[in-house]
Amino acid sequence: MGKVICAGLGPGDPELMSVRSYRAIQSARHVAYFRKAGHVGQARTIVNGLMPDTAVEHAMEYPVTTEIHFSDPEYNRQLSAFYDDWADRLAELSQSEDVVVLCEGDPFLYGSFMHLYTRLRDRTQVDVIPGITGMSGCWTATGHPITWGDDVLTVAMATLSEDELTERAAGTDALVVMKIGRNLPKLRRALERAGRLNDAWIVVKGTMAEQQVHKLSELDGPVPYFSIAMVHGQGRRP
Amino acid sequence: MGKVICAGLGPGDPELMSVRSYRAIQSARHVAYFRKAGHVGQARTIVNGLMPDTAVEHAMEYPVTTEIHFSDPEYNRQLSAFYDDWADRLAELSQSEDVVVLCEGDPFLYGSFMHLYTRLRDRTQVDVIPGITGMSGCWTATGHPITWGDDVLTVAMATLSEDELTERAAGTDALVVMKIGRNLPKLRRALERAGRLNDAWIVVKGTMAEQQVHKLSELDGPVPYFSIAMVHGQGRRP
Ligand SMILES: C[S@@+](CC[C@H](N)C(=O)[O-])C[C@H]1O[C@@H](n2cnc3c(N)ncnc32)[C@H](O)[C@@H]1O
Ligand SMILES: C[S@@+](CC[C@H](N)C(=O)[O-])C[C@H]1O[C@@H](n2cnc3c(N)ncnc32)[C@H](O)[C@@H]1O
Repeated sequence: MGKVICAGLGPGDPELMSVRSYRAIQSARHVAYFRKAGHVGQARTIVNGLMPDTAVEHAMEYPVTTEIHFSDPEYNRQLSAFYDDWADRLAELSQSEDVVVLCEGDPFLYGSFMHLYTRLRDRTQVDVIPGITGMSGCWTATGHPITWGDDVLTVAMATLSEDELTERAAGTDALVVMKIGRNLPKLRRALERAGRLNDAWIVVKGTMAEQQVHKLSELDGPVPYFSIAMVHGQGRRP
Repeated sequence: MGKVICAGLGPGDPELMSVRSYRAIQSARHVAYFRKAGHVGQARTIVNGLMPDTAVEHAMEYPVTTEIHFSDPEYNRQLSAFYDDWADRLAELSQSEDVVVLCEGDPFLYGSFMHLYTRLRDRTQVDVIPGITGMSGCWTATGHPITWGDDVLTVAMATLSEDELTERAAGTDALVVMKIGRNLPKLRRALERAGRLNDAWIVVKGTMAEQQVHKLSELDGPVPYFSIAMVHGQGRRP
């Protein structure tokens, strides 16, 4: 009788993985990870060189990412069938052997694994190993603490409407915005309207070899999906 | 020429430390950590058995924790002198040797180290190793993901006023509240007023040997400082 182990990988630098995830990966017999079809995938890239040569790899390729808008019922239908299918396969595999599922950052913070988790938890043992979040990696990269004293921190997705982003940015001390990519122009307008654009930073691929750190107002051009914007809190400090 | 290395320790379970922090601690010559006078201290407890026998320990004992309210100027004065003093000592030590400063969770998320960091960064090299936050350890312990889809996550301190806590709890999808301890009755009233008490959980000493996980409405009695309350988001899930 095996189990499914979801290993949080942290923000990108392999040394920022927890000791427990590191060990799970080093002794894995089956390793599964999500990726966009035709790409190596961020999770798989992070563990490069860490898995045993004998590990069997299972690439779980999303049937759709941004080709269909997430408000379209077809998006939901395709993704739901995809998660059902992989949940079946992992439940089956874990009858006899452990399967390690890789997850960027911390699995329970907006992670795709959660959709397998809800489908698997009543059928097999599932262990989740937390990880350093992408946002922790990114605010550390800016060299400025994110929150002080009684600061309120708001974490929001750039997929929200411009009005909602504006309201959230105006109504918090510290702000973190994820899932940026093509939403950057909208996010920029929202931060401008909230009067916070000049205090905003953006970190692209935080802690990875290609890491970039910019003041958002000085950034030129588009950013990839693996980008986090933030405004640091300014709370009490003795 | 040495440097100051702040090692994020993660939520409590030593295996949830990053590989980088683990290595820094295993080879440390000087280890400094905060604690309340007369206590071993949470950070020191986490690294028990991991440091070399030859490591020199520096216990940085807070001159005040909850004896004086943080709104009293005296609180600020004493803490400020304390951080000045330790910044001087660590700057001095790091002229010749590396010093590892321990920090629970992730150093840049409401961590005491930040007060040394601002005093040290222009005087010596300071490296910060991010960590798994206490909140990640705690929501993983509940067995429920904290955020889905476009959920907004608000992180607030229980030291805020009851009105502000009520407003924050009502105006977010997912909620995390830290620094609970003696603020528990106030937090409970705020969650009740916001209509969210029945969905709230509380995790005491998440990932540590003494971990407790409760529905907040079923909790009897007080909780220690190392407790986190939360309401999970219910966002989009295919
Ligand atoms: C589906 S969420 C997954 C979050 C992940 N579970 C975590 O804990 O960080 C994907 C988003 O995470 C953010 N992200 C994660 N790691 C990052 C990194 N190292 N640098 C920049 N952004 C990152 C990006 O905003 C991206 O759009
Ligand atoms: C000064 S803050 C430090 C937060 C830390 N830097 C982090 O990233 O988690 C102290 C608060 O962290 C929370 N905390 C940290 N680790 C915890 C754990 N393992 N279990 C419960 N609460 C924890 C408690 O709410 C406590 O009051």
